[in-house]
Amino acid sequence: MSATSPPALDAVLAAAAAAAPTLAAATPRARAQLLIALADGLSDAGAELTAIAADETGLGEARLTGEVARTAVQLRLFAETVLTGGALGARIDEADPAFALGHRPDLRRSHRPVGPVLNFAASNFPFAFSVLGGDTASILAAGCPVIVKAHSGHPLLSDATGAVAQRVIAELGFPAGTLQVVHGHDAGVVALTDARVRAGSFTGSTAGGRALADLAAARPAPIPFFGELGSVNPVVVTAAAVAERAPELASGYLASVAGSAGQLCTKPGVLLTATPGPIAAALSRLPRVPEHRLLGARITESYRERRAALLTLPGVTPIIEGSIRIENDGTGWVTPTIVSASLATVLAHRQLLADETFGPLSVLAELPPAADPAAVLDELFEGSLTGTVHISATERAAPGPELARLAEVLAQRAGRVIFDEWPTGVAVSPAQQHGGPWPATTNDTSTSVGSAAISRFLRPVAFQNAPQALLPAELTDANPLGVRQERSRAGESLHWGAPRP
Amino acid sequence: MSATSPPALDAVLAAAAAAAPTLAAATPRARAQLLIALADGLSDAGAELTAIAADETGLGEARLTGEVARTAVQLRLFAETVLTGGALGARIDEADPAFALGHRPDLRRSHRPVGPVLNFAASNFPFAFSVLGGDTASILAAGCPVIVKAHSGHPLLSDATGAVAQRVIAELGFPAGTLQVVHGHDAGVVALTDARVRAGSFTGSTAGGRALADLAAARPAPIPFFGELGSVNPVVVTAAAVAERAPELASGYLASVAGSAGQLCTKPGVLLTATPGPIAAALSRLPRVPEHRLLGARITESYRERRAALLTLPGVTPIIEGSIRIENDGTGWVTPTIVSASLATVLAHRQLLADETFGPLSVLAELPPAADPAAVLDELFEGSLTGTVHISATERAAPGPELARLAEVLAQRAGRVIFDEWPTGVAVSPAQQHGGPWPATTNDTSTSVGSAAISRFLRPVAFQNAPQALLPAELTDANPLGVRQERSRAGESLHWGAPRP
Repeated sequence: MSATSPPALDAVLAAAAAAAPTLAAATPRARAQLLIALADGLSDAGAELTAIAADETGLGEARLTGEVARTAVQLRLFAETVLTGGALGARIDEADPAFALGHRPDLRRSHRPVGPVLNFAASNFPFAFSVLGGDTASILAAGCPVIVKAHSGHPLLSDATGAVAQRVIAELGFPAGTLQVVHGHDAGVVALTDARVRAGSFTGSTAGGRALADLAAARPAPIPFFGELGSVNPVVVTAAAVAERAPELASGYLASVAGSAGQLCTKPGVLLTATPGPIAAALSRLPRVPEHRLLGARITESYRERRAALLTLPGVTPIIEGSIRIENDGTGWVTPTIVSASLATVLAHRQLLADETFGPLSVLAELPPAADPAAVLDELFEGSLTGTVHISATERAAPGPELARLAEVLAQRAGRVIFDEWPTGVAVSPAQQHGGPWPATTNDTSTSVGSAAISRFLRPVAFQNAPQALLPAELTDANPLGVRQERSRAGESLHWGAPRP
Repeated sequence: MSATSPPALDAVLAAAAAAAPTLAAATPRARAQLLIALADGLSDAGAELTAIAADETGLGEARLTGEVARTAVQLRLFAETVLTGGALGARIDEADPAFALGHRPDLRRSHRPVGPVLNFAASNFPFAFSVLGGDTASILAAGCPVIVKAHSGHPLLSDATGAVAQRVIAELGFPAGTLQVVHGHDAGVVALTDARVRAGSFTGSTAGGRALADLAAARPAPIPFFGELGSVNPVVVTAAAVAERAPELASGYLASVAGSAGQLCTKPGVLLTATPGPIAAALSRLPRVPEHRLLGARITESYRERRAALLTLPGVTPIIEGSIRIENDGTGWVTPTIVSASLATVLAHRQLLADETFGPLSVLAELPPAADPAAVLDELFEGSLTGTVHISATERAAPGPELARLAEVLAQRAGRVIFDEWPTGVAVSPAQQHGGPWPATTNDTSTSVGSAAISRFLRPVAFQNAPQALLPAELTDANPLGVRQERSRAGESLHWGAPRP
């Protein structure tokens, strides 16, 4: 796939800018119809697209078929969210002549699309985080045109998916600039720094995401940029949980490390426990996981290097040694590797043992008996997308203060805190939070999964003392969209002087 | 006031970091009590503080007394907001075994404080945007410690206000690091790039705000930064409105330009109308506005320069020529200046005529009879905090498509669109939006006035499958805080397949 040429890119940017007013003016109903039609188009083309994806990414058919289904559901979920109007955040302050500071005007605030958004697609989810993925769904749901910078790992799939989208967009009468696909690093950089692009989103490496975030921030007119980067996803397992269900924990752990060959941003990179013995024993009894292809030669090489370096560290013992096999063209095939190490060893080699290795590798770290897991996490980890704790049924029924401390430290470090489940598998739902403190994301006040992701591409505008006919529909008294309006009535606020808590 | 020394600053940063967990753990009730006690403390010290403020800023007593009242109400409004829990954005997705993609876990999401925030105080609101101002109120309401970098225009007032706050904080048993004041440009820069500071806010000039935003973005771990910068605040007056009430429009316009000597970020910088004659005539008949002192020597010099350059432009005619008088120590005294110019002249000298002049100066621009105001605004202006339209009663009853276009262009350009009122005077209420596209703010997805401002200092965290005892109170089924919980029930979402809009 050749890179998008400068003139072609300029045409794409012009088309996106031209499409912006039409999309902004489209009713929620029309936007929802578009999202649903895109979901249908994707599902209909599923067989054709998964064949291309399997060839380009090496991901298995079951995984890819599931991912197409997830991606279609995701588009429908955003359609549902658009229809409820919740993301508009409509607030109405009634005029209040007797407000504490004198006359308060009629003020009505909702959110409008920011304009064209550039989305850098991910390599590891050729559907769910690519051309018709979660970012695109939330960008279109917000009413913004989207330009997808295709990932070089699946260019043919990106164009084929883009063609499906373009067909649907044309059929529904939306402008061609609604969704466009571009290729090549330079095209991405030029587009990100073009005045017509009003926000950026990205899923990928910390280095790549940071470089783009810096470009977005340095523009003459800076724009919001949402980069979802790497993550270690620490897991703590209490001794009581190990005593209760070591085999179940071991198989859950291995499945979470091995799934999609560990090429998931929520793969558990480190599992900490004071009693690793029973988990290690159970792990070594599990059936061998079949070989899985890695996404590309660059990921393969980086995985090979880190894994080799890690296996030669003093104090690191393989529990499941796994394998890596590299073909002449650089294609890598792997089975998962899980190693054990003491906390002291992890602390001595944190760059290798307590940082992300992209691929099916994880570290089972032994906590000293007296160690406080909360303090260890506090010392060892920066921001992560997730943090997980496995506890026993007794601990669940009556969690002690050490678990409360642990939950608090995880909430400080992560966007999602999980109990007794595994971090891989990210539900697409209203309360999802996929984004954590740096270096997990460039902007931890937002999520890139779930319906709250829409708000990244909206900005608030208030209307003061406006005629009803000039208000956005969601702010009118008639409320034809039937959306929730948070209303501050005259006489309600601060009329009793100080609130008395 | 001497600058905060490096060791003193380090102690301030350490105290803020130490206070963060206490503030984060404080109940909404405790946070509200703190805000109310601060409001009381400020009101009680009002006379003493306004005397210092009058001396340092030259702002009039009525204005300063009003500002203290506004600032106290603002603190109370944030207390009220904390008590309702709305800013927590609590969402609960019930576990749903029959979700479209298979088992959906129990997911509960709310918002937690980001940690210590550095606020750069403004010069022009020594109370409302300074030590106990809107930013501080929203930072404390969010549960974050605040470090206020005092504005050099009112250092004594900043310390006196800080002392009032410290007394209240100690009385209520909050840690001393809850609110601290530092002085000096270097201290601000060092603090902003210190790892213990987790977000920044600023009100001031475009150049200053941009430099700080760039520093925040370039940190090893970047942080959110909210800069409220300059703004032109265009006003359009229809010919019908002029015909209906030119004298009323003229006096409203002059009051909005002259208030606080025009040193307000929402001062109308340009008024566009096709029929300026009656407004100009009415303006020249208005009584002379008394002399008002400018905030400082730097503002005085910059105002003097821009005003002089503007008055000598060909095609610029003074309607109210105004005055500027500068004392030997650089203190400036001014009366408002309003000039008229054709649209062609404004277009030819946009740097002077269509950009912000901080001080009591505004341009009455004559639109050609055939000009479409929406197209002119589109061509002439970048982002502004506000955009205003004055229309006639007839137009209000039945606004035509040209007014709809005008409202749309203003909503694209501004954070607040105002009809038949003036942009100065910013209500502190839930639906307020004080923030617009660059260069009005560095981040137009947020507001710096009104209760929505809290969300700048919060980040979402989701809890998956957590024991009730380990959830934040707002996410528990018992809901002891009685906050609004947006609930997605099992069986409600996507169960009918595609939503049918």
